[in-house]
Amino acid sequence: MKRNVLIIGAGGVAKVVAHKCAQHNDELGQIAIASRSVDKCQAIIESVKAKESLKVPAEIKAYALNALDIEATKSLIRETDSQIVINVGSAFLNMSVLRACMETGAAYLDTAIHEEPGKICETPPWYGNYEWNHLAECQEKGVTAILGAGFDPGVVNAWAALAAERHFDQIDSIDILDVNAGSHGKYFATNFDPEINFREFTGQVWSWQNSQWTSNTMFEVKRTDDLPVVGKQNLYLTGHDEVHSLSKNLNVPNIRFWMSFGEHYINVFTVLKNLGLLSEQPVKTAEGLEVVPLKVVKAVLPDPASLAPGYTGKTCIGDLIKGTRDGQERELLIYNVADHEDAYAETDSQGISYTAGVPPVAAARLIVSGEWDAKRMVNVEELPAAPFLTLLDQMGLPTRIKDANGDRPWDQLA
Amino acid sequence: MKRNVLIIGAGGVAKVVAHKCAQHNDELGQIAIASRSVDKCQAIIESVKAKESLKVPAEIKAYALNALDIEATKSLIRETDSQIVINVGSAFLNMSVLRACMETGAAYLDTAIHEEPGKICETPPWYGNYEWNHLAECQEKGVTAILGAGFDPGVVNAWAALAAERHFDQIDSIDILDVNAGSHGKYFATNFDPEINFREFTGQVWSWQNSQWTSNTMFEVKRTDDLPVVGKQNLYLTGHDEVHSLSKNLNVPNIRFWMSFGEHYINVFTVLKNLGLLSEQPVKTAEGLEVVPLKVVKAVLPDPASLAPGYTGKTCIGDLIKGTRDGQERELLIYNVADHEDAYAETDSQGISYTAGVPPVAAARLIVSGEWDAKRMVNVEELPAAPFLTLLDQMGLPTRIKDANGDRPWDQLA
Repeated sequence: MKRNVLIIGAGGVAKVVAHKCAQHNDELGQIAIASRSVDKCQAIIESVKAKESLKVPAEIKAYALNALDIEATKSLIRETDSQIVINVGSAFLNMSVLRACMETGAAYLDTAIHEEPGKICETPPWYGNYEWNHLAECQEKGVTAILGAGFDPGVVNAWAALAAERHFDQIDSIDILDVNAGSHGKYFATNFDPEINFREFTGQVWSWQNSQWTSNTMFEVKRTDDLPVVGKQNLYLTGHDEVHSLSKNLNVPNIRFWMSFGEHYINVFTVLKNLGLLSEQPVKTAEGLEVVPLKVVKAVLPDPASLAPGYTGKTCIGDLIKGTRDGQERELLIYNVADHEDAYAETDSQGISYTAGVPPVAAARLIVSGEWDAKRMVNVEELPAAPFLTLLDQMGLPTRIKDANGDRPWDQLA
Repeated sequence: MKRNVLIIGAGGVAKVVAHKCAQHNDELGQIAIASRSVDKCQAIIESVKAKESLKVPAEIKAYALNALDIEATKSLIRETDSQIVINVGSAFLNMSVLRACMETGAAYLDTAIHEEPGKICETPPWYGNYEWNHLAECQEKGVTAILGAGFDPGVVNAWAALAAERHFDQIDSIDILDVNAGSHGKYFATNFDPEINFREFTGQVWSWQNSQWTSNTMFEVKRTDDLPVVGKQNLYLTGHDEVHSLSKNLNVPNIRFWMSFGEHYINVFTVLKNLGLLSEQPVKTAEGLEVVPLKVVKAVLPDPASLAPGYTGKTCIGDLIKGTRDGQERELLIYNVADHEDAYAETDSQGISYTAGVPPVAAARLIVSGEWDAKRMVNVEELPAAPFLTLLDQMGLPTRIKDANGDRPWDQLA
């Protein structure tokens, strides 16, 4: 039975992960948290103490770590006796942290696809460029690596698996709808790391349509949906991690990801992109200083973690699934609604960090219980969905289903 | 009689200055050009050769110079035997170049007010913070220093002086209207150094109203005018150099500067400013690199000089003057219209560089002739306007007057 968790990263999502690990430390064992800045780790630990999140008395330890340094990461895994690593640091770290896990035998969990600083939106499927190159090695070594175990990717993948198993004989389309109807009160801010946020939108938008990869540009394709609680929303076709694994693992010809954006976000994004300020490639100032414009944009924007105190409103994320069952066409929305203020009250964090940070802790609990200790590299849709969704119901992210028979908890019969 | 000109700077305006000096090198004597980048000087010299701008055969020499280095600047003035320095480098250089002139006895000319990198839009009158601190020393040493001898400031100051002398007994208001109705065909670009351009607009907008300094914010106050050739235009109250000298030198209770902006410019400006990307104060990236956001914005924007080849359309800059003459109220527009394509054909430069670069050469010719060799520090409105405007008529920037009696050349009787 695996125990003891090392959290890598100290941003908004890591804070939620720390709170949630603390709430279940009777199962998870010792908790350690490591990032480049040990001060940020310490601040998270203070928050965990202030909220009295620890279920059983324990000391969470903070470590300074450059997680690109594989040997240092291996040493820390061994020093802390961690058998589970939750990687919620920058997406640039995945490959080195995964390598450290493969070499120490620790289970690996992350919430976003690997990225290289100088490249954006690589050829689909993205996982094929990095993570999936290690499928065989994980299998051989019996290393558990669960990729994309946040909300989206993560919970939305589990929903897709649930739908395929329980609700459809054949699925024609999965449209993942991601709406943040919250308000942070700032002129402009991103809800997670601006660098990663913008990198999602500056390249090609890859979607899986008619069983092939289709390329669009950002804000080219729009839809409007009337969703539970948050109401009518404009969503735009967006490239996203889960499309790249679901298209491989499920036999579904159309898989698309859609994100809600207001006019103001689109205007700011368009200005910055057209000026070249979202570029990941360095430019040289008149004074000869080499600098990546996107990193300067990140530096001037509010720290996503700082948005939490004043954030109001709700998120609604769902899988809108169409297909057939017993020869009948049917349509199903599997969704969750989360509240920014509730997230703050519980974890000192805003709702976007909350939805991303709770699921990997549920996944870690399932590794401890053995139900998800796959001893190979998997994406979430390859694992049993029900125990994951059951835990999430209890941990603050309840799943609901809406179809012709009404709106109800996911595990309640229609 | 002063002779030999040293041009400091190698941007768009410097290029026009070089062409125009070349066209009058029989009067001006030897021409040298110096900037941080000797390559940029050399490129200007190539353009002067290609356009055959030199009136009498001569060699223009290029020098690498850091004009913040006063001793180096003094040495170059002496080495080139220059008795006139036209400073059209960055506005950060004024004080050091002026000091070099005061210590060598060379006449000093510039086209924009001094700025310090870490400060914007200082307390009015702006000239009082730097240039005018040296009034007494110039007077004592008999050094000619003509401040703000471009178009605006510069020609517009001469127009104000002309109006006060010839057309009004009492002036109530001078509204300087600066319209660029040209099109460069890029998503976004500034017509001169983006750093200096944006710095004009990010601080307080100072205007002289009811004989006192009045502060507004950028884009707060708008007017719409129907102007010669360019037609109906939206202009916005803007802080600008000439307001600060005209309010001291002329007995006029209202002096305002207005600049035309399209909706698109305002949108881009507003996004960049609100995000903090126009700040002159350094920020630190997550990687610890210190960088001034405005310098990165400058680095990603098109080089203003690069706009010239495709630039079409015209500029219209005028002084709209109201007051009384012989007990009667009257209103007068003194103005110039310049054409981007004509400017390019003559000097390889766009119209904004052209309007700024021709006047200091006219001023230099008047220093040579003695008419403007003031042997003290002056702003343009303190010098006789007629010889300046007469030269400009011949040099490509004709002045016209429009009033109740019609639209005509400035020196033609109504």
